[in-house]
Amino acid sequence: MSDLGITVKKSEDLSEWYTQVILKSGLADYAQVKGCMVFRELSYAIWERIQQIFNEKIKRTGHKNVYFPLFIPESFLKKEAEHFAGFVPEVAWVTIGGDTPLEERLAIRPTSETIIYATYAKWIRSWRDLPIKLNQWCSVVRWETKATKLFLRTREFLWQEGHTAHATKEEADKEVMEILNEYRDIMENYLAIPVLVGRKSENEKFAGALYTTTLEAIMPDGKALQMGTSHNLGQNFSKVFDVKFIGEDEKEHYVWQTSWGMSTRVIGAMVMVHGDDKGLIIPPKVAPIQAVIVPIPYKTADSSAISAKARETYEKLSKAGISTVLDDRKEYTPGWKFNDWELKGVPVRVEIGPRDVAREQVTLARRDTFEKIVVKDEEVVEAVKRLLDDIQWNLYQRAKKFLEEHITPVKSYDEFREVLRTKGGFIKASWCGSGECELKIKEETGATIRVIPFEKEAPISSCIYCGGEAKELVYFARSY
Amino acid sequence: MSDLGITVKKSEDLSEWYTQVILKSGLADYAQVKGCMVFRELSYAIWERIQQIFNEKIKRTGHKNVYFPLFIPESFLKKEAEHFAGFVPEVAWVTIGGDTPLEERLAIRPTSETIIYATYAKWIRSWRDLPIKLNQWCSVVRWETKATKLFLRTREFLWQEGHTAHATKEEADKEVMEILNEYRDIMENYLAIPVLVGRKSENEKFAGALYTTTLEAIMPDGKALQMGTSHNLGQNFSKVFDVKFIGEDEKEHYVWQTSWGMSTRVIGAMVMVHGDDKGLIIPPKVAPIQAVIVPIPYKTADSSAISAKARETYEKLSKAGISTVLDDRKEYTPGWKFNDWELKGVPVRVEIGPRDVAREQVTLARRDTFEKIVVKDEEVVEAVKRLLDDIQWNLYQRAKKFLEEHITPVKSYDEFREVLRTKGGFIKASWCGSGECELKIKEETGATIRVIPFEKEAPISSCIYCGGEAKELVYFARSY
Repeated sequence: MSDLGITVKKSEDLSEWYTQVILKSGLADYAQVKGCMVFRELSYAIWERIQQIFNEKIKRTGHKNVYFPLFIPESFLKKEAEHFAGFVPEVAWVTIGGDTPLEERLAIRPTSETIIYATYAKWIRSWRDLPIKLNQWCSVVRWETKATKLFLRTREFLWQEGHTAHATKEEADKEVMEILNEYRDIMENYLAIPVLVGRKSENEKFAGALYTTTLEAIMPDGKALQMGTSHNLGQNFSKVFDVKFIGEDEKEHYVWQTSWGMSTRVIGAMVMVHGDDKGLIIPPKVAPIQAVIVPIPYKTADSSAISAKARETYEKLSKAGISTVLDDRKEYTPGWKFNDWELKGVPVRVEIGPRDVAREQVTLARRDTFEKIVVKDEEVVEAVKRLLDDIQWNLYQRAKKFLEEHITPVKSYDEFREVLRTKGGFIKASWCGSGECELKIKEETGATIRVIPFEKEAPISSCIYCGGEAKELVYFARSY
Repeated sequence: MSDLGITVKKSEDLSEWYTQVILKSGLADYAQVKGCMVFRELSYAIWERIQQIFNEKIKRTGHKNVYFPLFIPESFLKKEAEHFAGFVPEVAWVTIGGDTPLEERLAIRPTSETIIYATYAKWIRSWRDLPIKLNQWCSVVRWETKATKLFLRTREFLWQEGHTAHATKEEADKEVMEILNEYRDIMENYLAIPVLVGRKSENEKFAGALYTTTLEAIMPDGKALQMGTSHNLGQNFSKVFDVKFIGEDEKEHYVWQTSWGMSTRVIGAMVMVHGDDKGLIIPPKVAPIQAVIVPIPYKTADSSAISAKARETYEKLSKAGISTVLDDRKEYTPGWKFNDWELKGVPVRVEIGPRDVAREQVTLARRDTFEKIVVKDEEVVEAVKRLLDDIQWNLYQRAKKFLEEHITPVKSYDEFREVLRTKGGFIKASWCGSGECELKIKEETGATIRVIPFEKEAPISSCIYCGGEAKELVYFARSY
């Protein structure tokens, strides 16, 4: 078993533990092309579940899915200067098609604002065409040069990107917040990961945006991880791509735009936040397999009765809408299977042995606490459902407690550095609002402003860096 | 209306009609990057429906979805010589990442056999790891230089590609046919497009395959269109990528592999086969909107009663699982809406005017025949369901009749050329089995062997080209 299981403790070497959990559980793998990964069936099924949840949400609010090209001509990317500057260092360029060098090189989309808005300019004529609210699920490429980290730093990853156009700034503001709230619901109520929400600073906002809103989670090593962003692009892109409409006032206006994205990195966060020394723990609401049934035959007992009961239980749970697997493979022992399904993070295990048959009961083991409970056959569906709810709740509470314990207010730069060095996490500090102080802090400590709360919080000291008058309290952290 | 509607007849200029229908219905658009297209909400929703249907099918038979990288190192593509030769003329190459020229250029996947099988070599150790049955939904790039034709010839398109590995040839054969049958079900019973199925000739098979099976439909201009292919790759790839397993016999074997794909070109086929001079006709089983309700207010009548009834009918139909839209926009007239929804191909229109309110009825109009029927309010759900079934059936029957009328047996090359010139369609002809005859016919007429029936059919003449002894009857056609 030892070479199959995780060989390091999460608390001792998070990074090595993270990689081992992902590879050994079969969640994902390194690809045979540098910097890229393979989303194996388990992670892809989680992604499909997230797609389903998010699609329901955005379709309910009038968004539609579409697909725009992978290729972006360099001239498009260049139109919005900040945007280009932000993305060009990480662009992969197609320069040859078939045998022929291209006249203009094509970027593999790092994000699709430019190609999409060039098209919006064609589609939008009057106020009647607004709002446009489109979304696409696709992969994007950002040419990372640092070491690959599965789900968190790869040259290609999967995401969704929403792109909307509105008649007014107010509508765009509303859209930004509506999506941020949908993201928050997914993070907290499905992935069981509590987040801080707020705005990004000018230095940290999306290249080309008016402002960026963000969701930030905390990882076990005290580093922050950005779970999604929702931007108000203002009229920055509409002005350069000439996206105009005739208003009800019969005058020409530029549209107001938003874009927002969430990527497969949230799966990496899920691994890190919930997993333990035995492997993955997948929150029940996004788990492709919620319960696994393991029959435990004994040589002396009637194994056919166990098989029959396992099958029956499988039917009952499946019929009740619980995604269940019956692991009746002959070539593995029950003990091996326990370890294997624990590694793969299935929330509930249902054990059925001779004693369970005799007593008309089953034994349930929960993945998060390893607690076992015995329930009567007729209660199995209700009991598993309750357990799934409990596990979902417990995972969230555990993570929330950790987050709360890792928000530390400080009143001086010395204190700031001390907390960063010893504990990490989010550091609440007073800031004068200057980008220079922010950049100096980043240079000297590696920490950046992760979130500026929507509701301005009163400073508790002068600016921790320059000692000047502080404008507000913001959250700093080192981040992934 | 004239500039919104289609300005040419389908029977007079199929190609121009095809483009107009797609652009004016909002199904899709040309992208702002050469050779590419935008899948707008209507075509993407049809694609999502096809994804849902196919996912259900393949998951039921134990396949799993995954995602492999977009990038394929040139050295991988080169490993299987036939495969490389087949694809290299159409590859888009990434040569620069960020600022740095790459050491080895990377293909944007034209198909993923090579990158996937390089990974299978890592994953497969013993017979216990088999079969592997994976599928991915993604886009692929083939650098077309001929004129762009929406859905049918674009540099990037969407598809699914399945990749399986098995212990024996028999299992791989079985997989190939299982998938071919699933494709057939989708084409015939969902897209309402009848197909001929069979094998491809050596000249026409997939580059690198042992053999290729195919589904071929007929378009209104008498040209064939390939709707999907399912290949037995034999051990061609496993030998070059070293995909081996230790069998139950404890010896090393190469795996047997299959791959199979279906792309968004089937949406192009759907447009061409079913559409008419008014626009699209979308088969009910894949229609994102199955019924549209258009209230017809009259100035003199009580429009609130009409609105209320329209809303009620909308609720009834939606609750019954019929995908329904209530078009109560004030800024357009009922006549404009009729035309617009006809253009967009919605199968059933529900009209509600003052007389319908007075008589407790609704008027249903079917998109395929324009026939109108009046039904009582209490029967509306059943009536719409019946109508959707009828339309689905009628579209298929119409297309089937057309296909059958366009299969012509010939006994000589003169006759062959005459049929091609006057009528097109599939030409059933006797063939000696030689690739040379086949290539000569292609050179001289543009027609290729589209399908070799699975059940060998006895020749009805000597080989139509060389006059030598014929082996079997095969289906020729010109094709998209």
